Amino acid sequence: MSPLELARLTLAGDKRACSRLISLTENEGTGYLDALKAIYPCADKAYVIGVTGPPGSGKSTLTDKLAKTLADGGKRVGIVAIDPTSPFTKGSILGDRIRMGAVSADKNVFIRSMGTRGSLGGLSKATANTLAILSAYGCDYILVETVGVGQSEIDIVRTADTTLMVMAPGLGDDIQAIKAGVMEIADVFAVNKADKDGAKKTQLEISAMLDFRMDWDFKPTVRLTVAETGDGVDGLLGDIMAHRDYLSNGGKLEKKRAYKRMSHIRDIIRDRLDRRVEELMADLAACTDAGRDPYSMSEELIRKIDLTRI
Amino acid sequence: MSPLELARLTLAGDKRACSRLISLTENEGTGYLDALKAIYPCADKAYVIGVTGPPGSGKSTLTDKLAKTLADGGKRVGIVAIDPTSPFTKGSILGDRIRMGAVSADKNVFIRSMGTRGSLGGLSKATANTLAILSAYGCDYILVETVGVGQSEIDIVRTADTTLMVMAPGLGDDIQAIKAGVMEIADVFAVNKADKDGAKKTQLEISAMLDFRMDWDFKPTVRLTVAETGDGVDGLLGDIMAHRDYLSNGGKLEKKRAYKRMSHIRDIIRDRLDRRVEELMADLAACTDAGRDPYSMSEELIRKIDLTRI
Repeated sequence: MSPLELARLTLAGDKRACSRLISLTENEGTGYLDALKAIYPCADKAYVIGVTGPPGSGKSTLTDKLAKTLADGGKRVGIVAIDPTSPFTKGSILGDRIRMGAVSADKNVFIRSMGTRGSLGGLSKATANTLAILSAYGCDYILVETVGVGQSEIDIVRTADTTLMVMAPGLGDDIQAIKAGVMEIADVFAVNKADKDGAKKTQLEISAMLDFRMDWDFKPTVRLTVAETGDGVDGLLGDIMAHRDYLSNGGKLEKKRAYKRMSHIRDIIRDRLDRRVEELMADLAACTDAGRDPYSMSEELIRKIDLTRI
Repeated sequence: MSPLELARLTLAGDKRACSRLISLTENEGTGYLDALKAIYPCADKAYVIGVTGPPGSGKSTLTDKLAKTLADGGKRVGIVAIDPTSPFTKGSILGDRIRMGAVSADKNVFIRSMGTRGSLGGLSKATANTLAILSAYGCDYILVETVGVGQSEIDIVRTADTTLMVMAPGLGDDIQAIKAGVMEIADVFAVNKADKDGAKKTQLEISAMLDFRMDWDFKPTVRLTVAETGDGVDGLLGDIMAHRDYLSNGGKLEKKRAYKRMSHIRDIIRDRLDRRVEELMADLAACTDAGRDPYSMSEELIRKIDLTRI
């Protein structure tokens, strides 16, 4: 089947074609760019929810429950799980994702894992492409789940319409400190595993941090959830929808979407430049000269980058 | 004082000049490249030990103890702490590093924190520059401490001569999984907080993972340590030195150093290209056109990159 035919079927809501188009794009198979250009007018129709939080917070289970709730309400939902891979093994470091049977079997839910692509900007570019395809396929909502550490991951979270930060009690002090860094991009908070000791305390701590800032346009809520049982999931979805309503007023969503388009362009350029640099480095490897300083050598290599080949 | 004068004094072992040269280089002040070129012949004299491990493993305390032990033995030691900063706050997310008084007051120990620099390749480039300056200053050993997550961090760890992976019992299943990904670059393991329950078990688990591979040239040791009390620290240093001895045979260290030089060149190029891309994106921001697809727009922007301006 031709890439343009895959694009046409994806736009018509064909799940299998959608899956094949994502794979073609990931592998950058012949014609993938033409297909992406063809679906581009529908690339922004889905509402994107970023789900982030430290390991151990239970965000995968919570993501699944949110997806199930949306799907049960008749919505078409995509789940994109960003799965950091080791550059050494080239394989997944979190292992094969074990998804709840209920969600993965749901005909209204499309699940996809993304691994790192090896180049800088590669992961965020690949994710943006996948989101565009899932949107064209007809997803009403896409949940993008990341562990929330690392530059690429933060770049991805920044392009979501609503960002949900999942925490849990008892994850330790260091992890609390790391969370603080990503705190500012969260629109909605969940304290998951709320049946565990200390959940109330974690909720109060987050609330106290949020109270520290006075000039909120939209002050994030901090919801207690137990993903395993589904407790609090409906309320959390309500919090997300409240943020969506907030964005819909006064052109704020349009601004977010413009930022997302810019990020996508930046990632495509970074990825292409980086590949060219890798080619040059491979040439250089044959003739490394320990005596010359890296500053002069990099200046020389930059002159060799041929932009017509990028 | 001129940058070249700073370089001269740094080479002569002047601690204050060394500190000023690192700051000048971080800020890319006038003449910093000339100074770096001047110290470059001595950039590779120090032995670099990468210390990585998950939050909560106690690797900072262990790093301090290793530095103290080396300094007490008459060695000049540098500690470079990679401190991930939030792109949102532009500040440190781990907070100000509280170092043991004993180490920070030691005249043989030079401590420096590095934050992210904002650009891709920026952190690893800045770290490589700092390592070069500390080496020229006369450090016999430099300990580079990172949290071990994210592409930049892994790039940094890869350039160390010996990589020490610090783990601890009871950090949870998710964290165990993340560790597995970085497992392959570790030359020496420490199970820190060995006075806690489960330390022996963690040690056995790591050993079992290592046993899985049959063709070791240098099989990593797995040492139990209690950084707080210093238990096992001498033994751990012995493990590191054994790896150093191993590298010294048959040109393996030279190969590592050549790889490090290549990485440094790559990071300089990436950093410069990325800054040019950011300039172009800023121009673009004024005229974002939602109707055009990002693939065509990035092709157009790539043509605008003027390599004579990089």
